[in-house]
Amino acid sequence: MSISLADLRSFVNSELIPLEPTFLQDSFGAILPKLRTLRSEVQRRGWWLPPLPHDYGGQGMPLTEFAAISEELGRTPIGHYTFNCQAPDVGNMELLHMHGNAEQRSRWLRPLAAGEIRSCFAMTEPEHAGSNPVWLDTSAVKDGDDYVINGHKWFTTAADGAAFTIVMAVTNPDAQPHLRASQIIVPLDTPGFKLVRNIKIMGEAGEDWASHAEVRFDNCRVPQSNRIGGEGAGFALAQDRLGPGRIHHCMRWIGICERALELMCRHAASRELAPGTMLGSRQAVQHWIAESRANINAARFMVMDAAHKIEHKGAHAARIEISTIKYFVAGGLQQTLDRAIQAHGALGITDDTPLAWWYRHERGARIYDGADEVHKNVVARQELKKYGVHIRD
Amino acid sequence: MSISLADLRSFVNSELIPLEPTFLQDSFGAILPKLRTLRSEVQRRGWWLPPLPHDYGGQGMPLTEFAAISEELGRTPIGHYTFNCQAPDVGNMELLHMHGNAEQRSRWLRPLAAGEIRSCFAMTEPEHAGSNPVWLDTSAVKDGDDYVINGHKWFTTAADGAAFTIVMAVTNPDAQPHLRASQIIVPLDTPGFKLVRNIKIMGEAGEDWASHAEVRFDNCRVPQSNRIGGEGAGFALAQDRLGPGRIHHCMRWIGICERALELMCRHAASRELAPGTMLGSRQAVQHWIAESRANINAARFMVMDAAHKIEHKGAHAARIEISTIKYFVAGGLQQTLDRAIQAHGALGITDDTPLAWWYRHERGARIYDGADEVHKNVVARQELKKYGVHIRD
Amino acid sequence: MSISLADLRSFVNSELIPLEPTFLQDSFGAILPKLRTLRSEVQRRGWWLPPLPHDYGGQGMPLTEFAAISEELGRTPIGHYTFNCQAPDVGNMELLHMHGNAEQRSRWLRPLAAGEIRSCFAMTEPEHAGSNPVWLDTSAVKDGDDYVINGHKWFTTAADGAAFTIVMAVTNPDAQPHLRASQIIVPLDTPGFKLVRNIKIMGEAGEDWASHAEVRFDNCRVPQSNRIGGEGAGFALAQDRLGPGRIHHCMRWIGICERALELMCRHAASRELAPGTMLGSRQAVQHWIAESRANINAARFMVMDAAHKIEHKGAHAARIEISTIKYFVAGGLQQTLDRAIQAHGALGITDDTPLAWWYRHERGARIYDGADEVHKNVVARQELKKYGVHIRD
Amino acid sequence: MSISLADLRSFVNSELIPLEPTFLQDSFGAILPKLRTLRSEVQRRGWWLPPLPHDYGGQGMPLTEFAAISEELGRTPIGHYTFNCQAPDVGNMELLHMHGNAEQRSRWLRPLAAGEIRSCFAMTEPEHAGSNPVWLDTSAVKDGDDYVINGHKWFTTAADGAAFTIVMAVTNPDAQPHLRASQIIVPLDTPGFKLVRNIKIMGEAGEDWASHAEVRFDNCRVPQSNRIGGEGAGFALAQDRLGPGRIHHCMRWIGICERALELMCRHAASRELAPGTMLGSRQAVQHWIAESRANINAARFMVMDAAHKIEHKGAHAARIEISTIKYFVAGGLQQTLDRAIQAHGALGITDDTPLAWWYRHERGARIYDGADEVHKNVVARQELKKYGVHIRD
Repeated sequence: MSISLADLRSFVNSELIPLEPTFLQDSFGAILPKLRTLRSEVQRRGWWLPPLPHDYGGQGMPLTEFAAISEELGRTPIGHYTFNCQAPDVGNMELLHMHGNAEQRSRWLRPLAAGEIRSCFAMTEPEHAGSNPVWLDTSAVKDGDDYVINGHKWFTTAADGAAFTIVMAVTNPDAQPHLRASQIIVPLDTPGFKLVRNIKIMGEAGEDWASHAEVRFDNCRVPQSNRIGGEGAGFALAQDRLGPGRIHHCMRWIGICERALELMCRHAASRELAPGTMLGSRQAVQHWIAESRANINAARFMVMDAAHKIEHKGAHAARIEISTIKYFVAGGLQQTLDRAIQAHGALGITDDTPLAWWYRHERGARIYDGADEVHKNVVARQELKKYGVHIRD
Repeated sequence: MSISLADLRSFVNSELIPLEPTFLQDSFGAILPKLRTLRSEVQRRGWWLPPLPHDYGGQGMPLTEFAAISEELGRTPIGHYTFNCQAPDVGNMELLHMHGNAEQRSRWLRPLAAGEIRSCFAMTEPEHAGSNPVWLDTSAVKDGDDYVINGHKWFTTAADGAAFTIVMAVTNPDAQPHLRASQIIVPLDTPGFKLVRNIKIMGEAGEDWASHAEVRFDNCRVPQSNRIGGEGAGFALAQDRLGPGRIHHCMRWIGICERALELMCRHAASRELAPGTMLGSRQAVQHWIAESRANINAARFMVMDAAHKIEHKGAHAARIEISTIKYFVAGGLQQTLDRAIQAHGALGITDDTPLAWWYRHERGARIYDGADEVHKNVVARQELKKYGVHIRD
Repeated sequence: MSISLADLRSFVNSELIPLEPTFLQDSFGAILPKLRTLRSEVQRRGWWLPPLPHDYGGQGMPLTEFAAISEELGRTPIGHYTFNCQAPDVGNMELLHMHGNAEQRSRWLRPLAAGEIRSCFAMTEPEHAGSNPVWLDTSAVKDGDDYVINGHKWFTTAADGAAFTIVMAVTNPDAQPHLRASQIIVPLDTPGFKLVRNIKIMGEAGEDWASHAEVRFDNCRVPQSNRIGGEGAGFALAQDRLGPGRIHHCMRWIGICERALELMCRHAASRELAPGTMLGSRQAVQHWIAESRANINAARFMVMDAAHKIEHKGAHAARIEISTIKYFVAGGLQQTLDRAIQAHGALGITDDTPLAWWYRHERGARIYDGADEVHKNVVARQELKKYGVHIRD
Repeated sequence: MSISLADLRSFVNSELIPLEPTFLQDSFGAILPKLRTLRSEVQRRGWWLPPLPHDYGGQGMPLTEFAAISEELGRTPIGHYTFNCQAPDVGNMELLHMHGNAEQRSRWLRPLAAGEIRSCFAMTEPEHAGSNPVWLDTSAVKDGDDYVINGHKWFTTAADGAAFTIVMAVTNPDAQPHLRASQIIVPLDTPGFKLVRNIKIMGEAGEDWASHAEVRFDNCRVPQSNRIGGEGAGFALAQDRLGPGRIHHCMRWIGICERALELMCRHAASRELAPGTMLGSRQAVQHWIAESRANINAARFMVMDAAHKIEHKGAHAARIEISTIKYFVAGGLQQTLDRAIQAHGALGITDDTPLAWWYRHERGARIYDGADEVHKNVVARQELKKYGVHIRD
């Protein structure tokens, strides 16, 4: 691997973790100037944007290598941003790189890869359950050379300050459900686009990259050339994106788990319950540590195996593995954070450690990109299919 | 019972729940003016301060009756405050009423009961584990007729804007551990008292009543007559307070669970997964509902039984029951909230419902007033004692 | 209550528990002679058949009182049999008492109540899921004054040595599903009745009362006067039976839990891990004890409440409570037994304690009388109904 | 790999699984004649005793290859026996091969490897907790050229019919705890050896290989040359044995899990709840399938990783991984079996499938070879050591 994980860890420990208190006590905006400097440093060191090819300024890493890096970066909430491989931008970049045309790449991918602009992805609609991704109201109707887009989206991550969004909109309402939608680039200064609010999520509306918006498209007009890929290919492209995307998330979650376990152990190793009696002498705490360790190891093996399969056989071949890690790792993440908080006692619920931040902001891990329950259904149907039964939802 | 629970529920539904969006999206301060008006209305209706005697403006309710009311008020985060029976004030009022002398009652209890001032309780110290409540550094040293108090406390709930605190401080360092501390009233305008910060907890520093402070006592001088009860009685008074206090908390938690279950059911009964297919048709959701219902019913029976025992035999006789409900109800609360959030999908992690607020702010339920693990140890030791074995910690 | 629970416990401890080793190491048959003697003693003491009226030799106890007794008897696998209130006989007696006609009572109820004969109940069919109790193949076709019965049943508890069975058979195939079946008495010496086998369940085929049979009805001819209650009333009668039946089971399960907790505590209080270090000093064991204690208390409150409701408002009014206790108590039973076994180490899986027997034979608790999942569906549908949604299975 | 897993699976399916009903309904003895024939067939096919070298008639397989085979054989309770790689014989063979001298290998290992005799291993004592393996009462005192052995053991698996046992006995009572015991070969026809009983475990005393004995050594005299390895090396040899032994067990457990999942899926795919409605359409069942699949995959990755580490770095280097898989896989095994039984309803608790057999006989998996709790302590202590804290038990 062209990047030393030890160097990376050392950088995270010495440069990023010290910024956490300001991020946690104040805001993302308060550390942005410092992050900009660090981003330059990351570029200088040849660590920038690991998964993208060198000609876009990245490191051209295969998925399995980026996965290992993603774990290291996941140890702090601001790791991926500093390396310009944060969601949703990294997903948009991979999408544009694989499916964008030359002009789209030049106009949108280049500055994104350079870290000059940010982007967002507008898919989820408040009126429809995310578990049914083909049920959308947002429409893009052809008018001359343009699309006229109308719709209502939320959980459009990082819309605040983004230069453009990719929107999932129905272009072919009469087609089969999976062939109705297309993905279309909409610059956020397009008339009719409205950022309704940064949604207050788990107590925080956030700002800039660290936010999730509710947005509206009211007769937004963009040229048809803004469509990425074929007409009606929106769902297929979204599926494509989700494979590597889930690897990114899962390895980031494993990084969070490792950090939470480290914090739990450090606290258990230093907190006295009575003079000379360490918290770590308590069997309940020991068992939390042991169960977390087992779960983290299991999760890493499964995710790396799925990454390997995507890398060598493609996302479609690995779709069951991808569904499996989704709920296995998200569930373990929540348990590990919960144990680490409990071990910290009152300190655990304060923002004096990052545990409470993750506890809040990763509660969504069991929900976004398909709720755990949906993925379990997928895996079960696949198992049942082996015995000749096809269960429909 | 002198208060109709149906009327109470109707009041909560029509007057308090409509204030939740402003509270959740904005702040406690933003609804305070309206809450003041409602407090007057509550007084007018004869619902004010249910557990205190009539001559202090209360309703003179026995613990079991207040328990039932506490559940109803618990359905919204602002219920108890509106009825002036919010923690920590209600605990302080009970303490002053039972153990305060005439002057203390007149000077502090009267205005507190009238809702004219607020108070706080300073016990937990950041340097020591809450699981060992007799290990305190805060000291009160006699000097003439005064105590001179030095110490560092946190999780001093509602210190922001309070008129006074009751502080737990070591007055007899050479006594047996349980006889070292006393409880002393300290007006917050006493020189040397410092509110260091409203601790940012789960993303929010909060304000006014809805806050938890870190405070310091630097040579705070108060008259010895500010001591409540005997010298060295601090721990015994704290224990006394915890019995009814845990009933209040537990019934409030049950109210939260009922509301969470209601929200989960309403969402399941109205959210479509596909045209005509309700979320509530999903067996996973059905089982979350059924398990929550069973747990809530179980919790209520146990808490009401403990309340009955406290009422008729005293808190000491009920101490095992009190420990048992602590972990049983706090654990069930977290599970019920977690299920309700999961059932809501993305909506569940927003502050568009109160679920995410409780998820954050009641994570502490398994920690405060003695971590679950500590109470389990207590119950187990009692069971083992039946068979002749005395386990020490 | 006319029976002293303390006397009862003393009897169970001194007379029944000493028989367990022979029962566990050898067989039910090996202790039957001794049990017969003890049954006479129970009659002599006025403890016989608590729930049946005095004129049938019982004690005329209301459900709530019998519930308390059932818990005490449940502490040993042979308690209920010794008091002649064992399933399925007690259910058959209650059924015959409430719905049997004079001749049926005289011919079948009297000797059953006297303990002179045993009976069984044939409902479950191997070909159909027990979760759908109205889907039956067994038929009873009228022929002259008789019914001619054909069918295949299993889990016909205690058929081995029984004098008669009550069989659930379709008499009205064209009626609404819930009105198709009737309950009919079939003496086991009727030609065409065949006990195929005592099913080997969890390693044991058992014998006599302690067995569960697979049976066949091949043109079994019985007079129509053997039908209990109206034609097509079979399902309604079965429901009727299930209410008190589940109370009996649940209180018996609580008795098992109390005994398991007692065994766990005794072992923890006497087993040394190293010289002077008791098993009970381990926090993992302490938490198993504490969680079991909480669960048992919760279960008892819920079951006694359901019993009270059945007693005062009828089984139909209490049907949701009955479904709720089914899964709550059965689930807790399995957990408590599992913890007690784990605390015993290797000893726990031997038959040197009754834990392993219950672990095996009460695994069915989560399955029989409606699998837990089915009852959860029932409770959830009822909750959802409050919000206007009717979910069908 | 020199053995085709597909061929192996086909053999298990066509030759071994058809014997299960007789094994489950009748006894191990009832299928022994047939198993002897199959053992010859296994030898003929070159599948015999995979982990032992060719010069002992084995296949000379490295641990990771045998692990994969062990999973396949684990799909039926009689797989390992048929391939002569069953516990405890395979462990004894590995021990004798690595640490036995020429005479011991010739006299005991050869016929064992040939399947002509069976053996057992006597370590656990009823008077002492297995969690403390260095606390033993069994002693071997030198007398001339002999050891005179006295002691009481239980859970001596397969003693019934065995030719010899290896006994763990204290030879150096004054040494450090871990250096007190030696491992000594005792032919079972040695005067003073007594098989007290085949312990009734989970309802079955069993017989022949399928049994676990309580045994006594009363002045058993054997030559000192029967000692395996150095004096006082007993504990070290036992540790050595446990590494590969846990891999064997864990992979066998994974085989059980795969079979249980297969049975659950087949039942879900064929059982109708109502005409046309499959059990597999139930989301509860789907989620059991999905959670089992995830857990099995995770377990396999972890065990194969530990096997690889043992193979390449030795058992000591892999000791933490070995402890981790112990509780992770044993816990998952119990859950998977429990789900499969629940999905089968009443059928699940009968011996008409192997599920109930495993449910009973693998309950011990969380207990034997060190209870899960002990291994969690080990893993936690290792994690805490990283942060400078050494917790003693």
